[in-house]
Amino acid sequence: MRPSSVAIIGASDDPVRIGGRPLAYMLSQGFRGALMPVNPNRPTVQGVPAFARVADLPQAPDAAIVAIPGEAAVQAVADLGARGCGAAIVFTAGFAETGEAGAAMQARLLEAARPHGLRLLGPNCLGMFNATLGYYPIFSASFENGWPRTALPRMGGVGIASQSGAYGSHLFAAARDRGIATPVLVTTGNEADIGLADIIGWMAGSDEVQVIAAYAEGIQNGPRFVAALEAARRAGKPVVMMKVGRSALGMAAAQSHTASIAGDDRVMDAVLAEFGVHRARTTEELLDVCYVAQRGIFPARNTLGVVTVSGGAGVLMSDAAESVGLPMPPMPEAAQARLKRIVPFSSPLNPLDCTAQATNDMSVIGTFAESMMVDGGYASVIAFFTQWGASPSIAPRLRTELKAVLDAHPDRIFVLSILAPLDRVREWEADGFLCMEDPSRAVIALAAMGRFGESFARDAEAAAALPPIPLPDTSPNEADAKRILEAAGIPMVPEAACASVEDAVAAAEAIGYPVVAKILSPDILHKSEMGGVLLGLGHADAVRAGFATLMQRARAHAPEARIDGVLVAKQVTGGVEIALGVVRDPVFGPMAMVGLGGVFIEIFKDVAFRRCPVDAGQAEAMIRSLRGFPLLDGARGKPKADVAALAQALVALSRFAAAAGPRLASAEINPLLVLPAGQGAFAADAVIEVA
Amino acid sequence: MRPSSVAIIGASDDPVRIGGRPLAYMLSQGFRGALMPVNPNRPTVQGVPAFARVADLPQAPDAAIVAIPGEAAVQAVADLGARGCGAAIVFTAGFAETGEAGAAMQARLLEAARPHGLRLLGPNCLGMFNATLGYYPIFSASFENGWPRTALPRMGGVGIASQSGAYGSHLFAAARDRGIATPVLVTTGNEADIGLADIIGWMAGSDEVQVIAAYAEGIQNGPRFVAALEAARRAGKPVVMMKVGRSALGMAAAQSHTASIAGDDRVMDAVLAEFGVHRARTTEELLDVCYVAQRGIFPARNTLGVVTVSGGAGVLMSDAAESVGLPMPPMPEAAQARLKRIVPFSSPLNPLDCTAQATNDMSVIGTFAESMMVDGGYASVIAFFTQWGASPSIAPRLRTELKAVLDAHPDRIFVLSILAPLDRVREWEADGFLCMEDPSRAVIALAAMGRFGESFARDAEAAAALPPIPLPDTSPNEADAKRILEAAGIPMVPEAACASVEDAVAAAEAIGYPVVAKILSPDILHKSEMGGVLLGLGHADAVRAGFATLMQRARAHAPEARIDGVLVAKQVTGGVEIALGVVRDPVFGPMAMVGLGGVFIEIFKDVAFRRCPVDAGQAEAMIRSLRGFPLLDGARGKPKADVAALAQALVALSRFAAAAGPRLASAEINPLLVLPAGQGAFAADAVIEVA
Repeated sequence: MRPSSVAIIGASDDPVRIGGRPLAYMLSQGFRGALMPVNPNRPTVQGVPAFARVADLPQAPDAAIVAIPGEAAVQAVADLGARGCGAAIVFTAGFAETGEAGAAMQARLLEAARPHGLRLLGPNCLGMFNATLGYYPIFSASFENGWPRTALPRMGGVGIASQSGAYGSHLFAAARDRGIATPVLVTTGNEADIGLADIIGWMAGSDEVQVIAAYAEGIQNGPRFVAALEAARRAGKPVVMMKVGRSALGMAAAQSHTASIAGDDRVMDAVLAEFGVHRARTTEELLDVCYVAQRGIFPARNTLGVVTVSGGAGVLMSDAAESVGLPMPPMPEAAQARLKRIVPFSSPLNPLDCTAQATNDMSVIGTFAESMMVDGGYASVIAFFTQWGASPSIAPRLRTELKAVLDAHPDRIFVLSILAPLDRVREWEADGFLCMEDPSRAVIALAAMGRFGESFARDAEAAAALPPIPLPDTSPNEADAKRILEAAGIPMVPEAACASVEDAVAAAEAIGYPVVAKILSPDILHKSEMGGVLLGLGHADAVRAGFATLMQRARAHAPEARIDGVLVAKQVTGGVEIALGVVRDPVFGPMAMVGLGGVFIEIFKDVAFRRCPVDAGQAEAMIRSLRGFPLLDGARGKPKADVAALAQALVALSRFAAAAGPRLASAEINPLLVLPAGQGAFAADAVIEVA
Repeated sequence: MRPSSVAIIGASDDPVRIGGRPLAYMLSQGFRGALMPVNPNRPTVQGVPAFARVADLPQAPDAAIVAIPGEAAVQAVADLGARGCGAAIVFTAGFAETGEAGAAMQARLLEAARPHGLRLLGPNCLGMFNATLGYYPIFSASFENGWPRTALPRMGGVGIASQSGAYGSHLFAAARDRGIATPVLVTTGNEADIGLADIIGWMAGSDEVQVIAAYAEGIQNGPRFVAALEAARRAGKPVVMMKVGRSALGMAAAQSHTASIAGDDRVMDAVLAEFGVHRARTTEELLDVCYVAQRGIFPARNTLGVVTVSGGAGVLMSDAAESVGLPMPPMPEAAQARLKRIVPFSSPLNPLDCTAQATNDMSVIGTFAESMMVDGGYASVIAFFTQWGASPSIAPRLRTELKAVLDAHPDRIFVLSILAPLDRVREWEADGFLCMEDPSRAVIALAAMGRFGESFARDAEAAAALPPIPLPDTSPNEADAKRILEAAGIPMVPEAACASVEDAVAAAEAIGYPVVAKILSPDILHKSEMGGVLLGLGHADAVRAGFATLMQRARAHAPEARIDGVLVAKQVTGGVEIALGVVRDPVFGPMAMVGLGGVFIEIFKDVAFRRCPVDAGQAEAMIRSLRGFPLLDGARGKPKADVAALAQALVALSRFAAAAGPRLASAEINPLLVLPAGQGAFAADAVIEVA
């Protein structure tokens, strides 16, 4: 990332060829380290003394660019490793992205590097830059239209980490044209060694980068990725991410584009939310959030105040704020009364509408904006002044009024929403204003600043050190699964496994009627589909008849199945049925899941995920995030359910999953019967699948 | 809208004063009709001969501008009416927007105009323009930065109709800066007479306007509004609307801003959807849709093809297309095979990724794009070429390749997504390309073109001529309500109203057990809350006991209530419970409503609305739009429900509501029990509220 010497394998004298661009760029941008072109055919390349072979290099290069084809690239990496090079950036394509033969060659590339501790970026990557050093090991043509800026006054630099070269390069160019400083760009290509997570992790600790913009198609290494996100969070650096493959269509497109693993998109959402990452849906939104994040103000308690010359635009911003959950509390009443004396007929709640009166008396604008800051105390402020920002007759006075407010309150995020040509926007920006034409986009970006602030304010969580829990060799039957989960701290509905009719009757008498009877077999996972669950057995004869029925159905349904008997359980009524589960994500490991049972999960997809283990607060937040939460919270005149007990069961299940290790394929409790507050929550069924 | 003579009451010699701007604008823009300033203090105004009083005008003006304060404005309108003026544009503020006294003055303004047939725009409006005539009765300062364009080659003009002056003016300026032609702008202010609906209706029939952009805070006159939308639809002119007040916060802000009626936002959504209006959520989205709609291509069967130099951006667009329901079918296999021979390792499904190979051989781009048109047959195409669109070394060749494809297929909507400075964008646009930097925004705009096409392709619906249905004088009890709805064609669960215990037993025997018994009273609307519904009465004794229980509970709950007896009904099981209803919207009249009963409506707000009456196709579309529709469609192994019978019940209820007239406050059937396909749907409860 910060080399003092760079070798270029396959350096070209032609400054627009792939092997020529990096050298031309570094020469043009004043890279101060040693530049060592390697080219067997020329004594100099672009005027720089060249070396015929890697072995001839006068010193071990900190970094090398590999811009030669196929097997020669593999050999070059081996030679660089032997020469003591630290890292190689491999432009060469034709590796894993092209199929099996390419994947084998990529494996050889990695083998050539590993023994020497040589790190690889790529292959099949566009390269990277660290503009603070003039270091440009990259063959993008983006610089035809301008170089990156390394820093802006009062603004933090945005680092771009992208799995796609073309998209990363597009992002850099769009950010540059927008006036955003992008000191560092890294594209990771095939990620044979260095992945997106490593780059985010580096940026979290770097001085060059204060805001991290990332583009991902698929995450290869979950633990490294979450460690990088946590490092960024602890460093107070916001991460703004474009993770494509959100839709079924997009996932198919992503898979045809690269060989990435595209997991369940809701798992990705859960992981990003856990670390306070802003997931952008469009490139524009990504840039908007980066643009505002440059300012480096992340209020843990965000509120929005709006001052406007259009009441209509004020309503529009109120709609936008509500849709993203950004509070717009009203101005204090005393301040309202004062402002109303200045502009009669206005209703200075929030938004504050300066009305047409401002054209006659521009001091109204300063008075209103200052009152928003001082009386309203809003962390975020939008000033909507449409074309006034570019009006020769109005803009100078508008600037005087607003600049005084901006300068007096450097701790607030102040966005000016104006309609103006780019050169006028640049003038406002030079004064220290953040400028965004569309006020709805400004609202979304400001809301993101608050969520970053909330995330940064959270304490680092101590890694839970859970003693490992041994699992049986194969998937246990229901009774055994319940015993395992009960030991893990999940209360069970009273029940007994009964091998005989007599045992079943005795158990029912002990538990109390009515009871439920279920077939007990490790080979029958979905009992209700085969009629293997009988409800409401009210007396001993019913239990006897039920036992016989279940045996008969099991034999008819699955003649080969091992039958362990029948489970007799208390029939609990009056609870809300909840489904709890753990699924193992291939990238992020066990994910805890909670949802209201039945149609709510299947049809409405109303379910919350989070990585295991979760603590009580996180579990409750998951539960409260369900759209159907009112059903647990006293909706329709029912008593409030025991959410604390539900949360505790979720915590216990998630800790069990974290401690059980990778052999746990899945675990499910469905239903968990959540009784009214204070009466607990009890698992009525449980399945554990062991890999 | 197209006057040949204009009087200006309160004309000022100062061209930047409110009374001076319109004259200055019309002089500068070459208005060809007669301009007649009225000013008692000067012989000429801005060089134009002036008249001291309205009575002195040498001819009856087609239109007049009123730019004088308060009561003088009222007098001017009376004078103009007497002089035979056709319409007055009243800038004057201080009317209904300021409170009761102002509202009274506004009523006098209207009274002054009405007897003469003088139409009013405003008061408290910014004015309007029709740039095709140089007609500028408006005091906006927007023209400091440029005049509207009346037309662009191959593009239809966008008319702007706005209830807000400041926002309408902002929209004009933003459209102008975007390169959109806006021949007409009308702001309606307080809408004492002419409202937004009138303007939309005029635009629907005008030659100047091919696309209608509208901003609304509240609709005053529902019938006029829907007539205008239908006129636009029949004329094949898309309407793009910003209706603010979507959120609770926004509604509060809208109410403090104007005196508009802000109804249930879902009703507004339903009405706009009925007429194919695109409801934009942001100003930018509104402009995006107008920008693409200018091209005038509205495919009734829209599909999207994407050609790209970034696989990542391709995935992003696929995600966006799925989220807005725009299909991206794959290329035909033969075409895929052919393209794969040209670019190995590409997967030319759709998106088509030209890959880096295009830099070496630009003809790949033309070949790919042409194949999308010819082989893929996509109605909409996005070509994503990021900074290539501004690259001196690449752009000229890119233009050659793409221009040939564009010119060969003028029937397709071709959007170029490039990153380029405004002057370069203007060059591409001059070539006939639509240019949008953000590809996700392009996808949204293109999806809108297809929905316009679908809407335009629908036949005009004959206004249903329903014979009026008389309603009782007061709200009927449940039994009477059911009889009324049964007569309207809604099947009822078999039942009988029983005044005595003996009647109840006899009825139960006739209907067959089990039965349901419900208290029968016009004064008890919510029976279940007071224990007024008993289920599963299986024999005569249970009916007797139930009758006594219900009488006792009714007397305890509501001692004053009139008790008509008990309703005995067949207990239908195995149906899906649906809620049907009609609510009277203050603006749009009776709205039919359907949702899955219980929590689905209350917690998940899963409900569909449409204006009454609806036909069978519309009813089924409403039902299918429910998120919970799978519950009617065989989810979870249940039989498919009788959706046709449900739709028929919805049709019957909506026709009843349309025929019953404004005294029907509401009607509700909850539940309607929808049995498996072929077995019908039966109402189990009904409420009719008469105003």
